[in-house]
Amino acid sequence: MDRERASTDRSGFVADTHPDGVVFAESAEDVVATLQLATDHRVPVVPRGAGTGLAGGSSARSGEVVLDVSRMNNILRIDPVEQLAVVQPGVLNAEINAAAAEYGLFYAPDPASTAICSIGGNIATNAGGMRCAKYGVTRESVLALRVILADGRELRTGRETIKGVTGYDLNALIIGSEGTLGIVVEATLRLRPLPVATATVAAFFPDVESAARAASAVVAARIQPSMMELIDGPTLEAVDAALGTDYRSRGASFLLVQTDGYGAFLEQEVVLDAINPHATSCTKAADDDEAAALVKARREAIPSLEKIGRVSIGDIGVPRGRLAEAVTGLEEISAATGVRIFTIAHASDGNLHPMIVMDPQDSVTEGPAKEALGQMFYLAHRLGGTLTGEHGVGLLKRDWVAEELGAVSVGVQHAIRRALDPLGILNPGKAI
Amino acid sequence: MDRERASTDRSGFVADTHPDGVVFAESAEDVVATLQLATDHRVPVVPRGAGTGLAGGSSARSGEVVLDVSRMNNILRIDPVEQLAVVQPGVLNAEINAAAAEYGLFYAPDPASTAICSIGGNIATNAGGMRCAKYGVTRESVLALRVILADGRELRTGRETIKGVTGYDLNALIIGSEGTLGIVVEATLRLRPLPVATATVAAFFPDVESAARAASAVVAARIQPSMMELIDGPTLEAVDAALGTDYRSRGASFLLVQTDGYGAFLEQEVVLDAINPHATSCTKAADDDEAAALVKARREAIPSLEKIGRVSIGDIGVPRGRLAEAVTGLEEISAATGVRIFTIAHASDGNLHPMIVMDPQDSVTEGPAKEALGQMFYLAHRLGGTLTGEHGVGLLKRDWVAEELGAVSVGVQHAIRRALDPLGILNPGKAI
Repeated sequence: MDRERASTDRSGFVADTHPDGVVFAESAEDVVATLQLATDHRVPVVPRGAGTGLAGGSSARSGEVVLDVSRMNNILRIDPVEQLAVVQPGVLNAEINAAAAEYGLFYAPDPASTAICSIGGNIATNAGGMRCAKYGVTRESVLALRVILADGRELRTGRETIKGVTGYDLNALIIGSEGTLGIVVEATLRLRPLPVATATVAAFFPDVESAARAASAVVAARIQPSMMELIDGPTLEAVDAALGTDYRSRGASFLLVQTDGYGAFLEQEVVLDAINPHATSCTKAADDDEAAALVKARREAIPSLEKIGRVSIGDIGVPRGRLAEAVTGLEEISAATGVRIFTIAHASDGNLHPMIVMDPQDSVTEGPAKEALGQMFYLAHRLGGTLTGEHGVGLLKRDWVAEELGAVSVGVQHAIRRALDPLGILNPGKAI
Repeated sequence: MDRERASTDRSGFVADTHPDGVVFAESAEDVVATLQLATDHRVPVVPRGAGTGLAGGSSARSGEVVLDVSRMNNILRIDPVEQLAVVQPGVLNAEINAAAAEYGLFYAPDPASTAICSIGGNIATNAGGMRCAKYGVTRESVLALRVILADGRELRTGRETIKGVTGYDLNALIIGSEGTLGIVVEATLRLRPLPVATATVAAFFPDVESAARAASAVVAARIQPSMMELIDGPTLEAVDAALGTDYRSRGASFLLVQTDGYGAFLEQEVVLDAINPHATSCTKAADDDEAAALVKARREAIPSLEKIGRVSIGDIGVPRGRLAEAVTGLEEISAATGVRIFTIAHASDGNLHPMIVMDPQDSVTEGPAKEALGQMFYLAHRLGGTLTGEHGVGLLKRDWVAEELGAVSVGVQHAIRRALDPLGILNPGKAI
């Protein structure tokens, strides 16, 4: 049961075999002991947290042992003066926010999966979310890490101070390394004061390109929204079906824009002016309940699609001004491959999630779905963008990594990987 | 002349010999050719920009060749839509801001030396400045780099999109590596919209501890100032002498707090309430001219001290809530060593610059000044802080690196350095 579960994640990819075993670590010492044994016996180890990854990064197969840290799920300390939290890797993103809220603080990076994803996985993928253009991605909110290296040694990276430049930035090197350089057993996170006010705008558009142009207009108006989420018409339909809402009847695409802080309502007026020329309707949320309902619609987009088929979630990033071109390109890919693509986007940072919805027996690793994934990458590349904005490479996107990074970069990355894990113990075949 | 200049920087350290030669690169191709020759002949290369470093990181000596990139000083492109600039390494920080301002944009990291320091050096040290607690350090504003490795190969790191997680974060690895992993020949920088408003508070205090407590009170009030600068009484005297001002007569220490953006003036009221219980006087700047004069006083602190002696600038970082303890500790170090210490601090991020002012013939690498530097490090360490917040390790702080980072981290860092520069061509003996 545990072995079967550990052969997959939320990416839609299922390994053809099961791993040899699953170790449930309950402490850093358990992680050390596991890695020492693995090194002694040359056994590859696949780190795993909540299992909500979207790129197959924690999928394990025969010959591999899974090191599951989901039971290391304690919040060790919250320091309201320094505005930081010290947590174990298995703590869920939403749990950190719930605990921080008691002190009037929050943890900024917020993947849509906040309720089910753990901070260890967030760190492994340098996860993003909706608030990144204003508050940064995971990297900007992780101050320090305790990491167990492949041979069982403990490495400490970063520090509790906001600034600090002694030595190389190993903290940033570990963040986003998808469990290939070490296993995080403790993280010190930067918290921020909860905004004193949040203002919400909901806008509907005649087509998705208009919504993308409106998003670019908000950026051009020099406003930094705390959230600017785009949802296309087909996704709105799926959300309506799942939640009993009527968003699709109000327009063929949707933009949700929040501004926050002391200037939230002044910024909201600028947002309205920027969006109005492009929109069918553009209104302020009447109250906090309406705002929460709108955010919920966005958060439920992926679960809503999962009700109508097997979902594989793309994750391309493009320069913000090219969002409309990206949306058009995705429509062309859908037409060319016959694959159904639903699109949502973090519009303030140019990160699109084109979601391929397949029949349950289809796979994203072959056939038209794989062809569509490949075309998405070339679309992003052509627009000056990237293969993955925030989900990571995992297994699913390895084929395109070298083309994006170039041979020199790939060579340097492998040299660093060898320097830290010469025996290739940690998550082999993933990420790079 | 060039060789003599290249034996030192602004740290107060002068190498006992001169480098063998200085290459003035005018293009990336010049950098490639120099490094290929250096590799062929196993000659150590010391990268150099504007020469304003504060840790001896670009000091070169006999047996070394200096690679000076200060003539590579073109702004190649500013993209107002994507809000980014592409620049060569020799461009000065202030020149970037002047060019960006024409588009209503700015480059956030602002070392006090903005008028004389170049972006290549900013990147080499992961430079900070006054606006970091709100806008982040250099790392948060560098999107992509073109880097020439020790063997002459070109590595590209990062990307032009805001998000992107393909591969390891080599961009962050290069930033702050003090020229030991590669030489930056082009940087893509994130620009931000100039704030629509900036509000300035100037407060004077009976002693420097009160100013530090007031700064902590601003943080506790959940305000994120764009700038919060502390100056102690002796430094105010030096500034007054240099600028003809009368700040010292108004208090024994000074705090300059700016808030910016749409909420600037609402936040200013909260700042005033937080500071008032601690202050002798606490007033809003009457107008932009008065605000600019106050900022100028802070920027001129170091040049003012340089008029009264040889200055060596410390750079410790402590948790923000321990600023008053740090200030008290510095007074104790001054008393114990007999060294004159003047203190300024970026109070919103806990980064203090204790400045040792010596007689011209004295050195910071020996005697009481070195003893004071060491005690500063132990003070920071005891308070949970760091040896260097933003200036880098260079030559001057190497003795304490291992103690801060620990043996495992130092080992990993050297392994990475060897992986990228196996022959030890780049800036040997510096940084780690």
